[in-house]
Amino acid sequence: MSASHRRPVPLAKAYRLLNHGPTVLVSAAHDGQRNIMAAAWAMPLDFEPPKVAVVLDKATWTRQLLEASGTFVLNVPCVAQADITQSVGTRSGLELQQQRGIDKFQAYGLQTFSADSIDAPMLEGCVAWLECRVLPEPHNHQQYDLFLAEVIAAQADERVFSEGHWHFEGHDQMRTLHHVAGGNFLAIGAAVVGHALAE
Amino acid sequence: MSASHRRPVPLAKAYRLLNHGPTVLVSAAHDGQRNIMAAAWAMPLDFEPPKVAVVLDKATWTRQLLEASGTFVLNVPCVAQADITQSVGTRSGLELQQQRGIDKFQAYGLQTFSADSIDAPMLEGCVAWLECRVLPEPHNHQQYDLFLAEVIAAQADERVFSEGHWHFEGHDQMRTLHHVAGGNFLAIGAAVVGHALAE
Repeated sequence: MSASHRRPVPLAKAYRLLNHGPTVLVSAAHDGQRNIMAAAWAMPLDFEPPKVAVVLDKATWTRQLLEASGTFVLNVPCVAQADITQSVGTRSGLELQQQRGIDKFQAYGLQTFSADSIDAPMLEGCVAWLECRVLPEPHNHQQYDLFLAEVIAAQADERVFSEGHWHFEGHDQMRTLHHVAGGNFLAIGAAVVGHALAE
Repeated sequence: MSASHRRPVPLAKAYRLLNHGPTVLVSAAHDGQRNIMAAAWAMPLDFEPPKVAVVLDKATWTRQLLEASGTFVLNVPCVAQADITQSVGTRSGLELQQQRGIDKFQAYGLQTFSADSIDAPMLEGCVAWLECRVLPEPHNHQQYDLFLAEVIAAQADERVFSEGHWHFEGHDQMRTLHHVAGGNFLAIGAAVVGHALAE
């Protein structure tokens, strides 16, 4: 398991976990129920205190749990989890519950661990995790399916993120996933340094 | 020049230009002045009509021009433009104007072409362009520096984007850039397909 590689990320550096635009898995729990879904539309919104923005369709059960609890986790999945990401991103957790009486974690054998400060489950095998508290902006929720939230804790797998930087070399299966459409992802690639041009 | 490779992207597919989380260059123009800046915090907000969300600091001149004109372009830069992206992302256009009487396009020798329907300049050498009209959401502007906008036209370089999909193989210099921090970018990498898991 990856527990031994998880390290806290200082809140001032938490934006860097999302800055390069990975697809995330949003997990939430309320009143004994839990769910997880994929979301390509997530981004940082502020540095410190760190905030994030994420788009969640009204039809999703994760959104219902998140609205009820006021909290959620952004799990950052990796190449080794492409099938998990596609599966939790297309299967309805509510339908699964109604049809078979199990949740997605049970259906796909997903292992979780507890967040520091909220009830939402954290998915094992991801490369970063952000615990978030929803900001009360009902107009954005209703009009745009847009949720803004404050990040209250963050962790990352030290094998690929430490000292505020991603370093994926030698860990191709731990590269972040970036969804295009219909299960077609791009893995994040090589480092490129930008230098200031002469004027 | 890349003009011969630019192709319109149907609005229903425009979200795919940003879905994988690239860093963008935001350009705007008003009353004979123009500017361009880098923004890592941009994402799709809706499918059709397509909408986007982007965070723009109050201190930026691009934001002033964008607020005055109500329109902007999201240019999607590529590896060949890492230095341009870093330069326009760190240099103040207003300071440059005040110090030397030129804009960033002049200072860095940047070539532009005209948008279809708005005044903002489109940057040559990028791999995609989204023409956007700001939605009137002053609370988001003031409270979060967050701008929501409708995409009214989109184009992409057909060498790397066509039929609704990115295909960067053989075009490493045209891969999108994903900023981490301080001029450290990651290029987008290899395709990964996610398959539905058995339940």
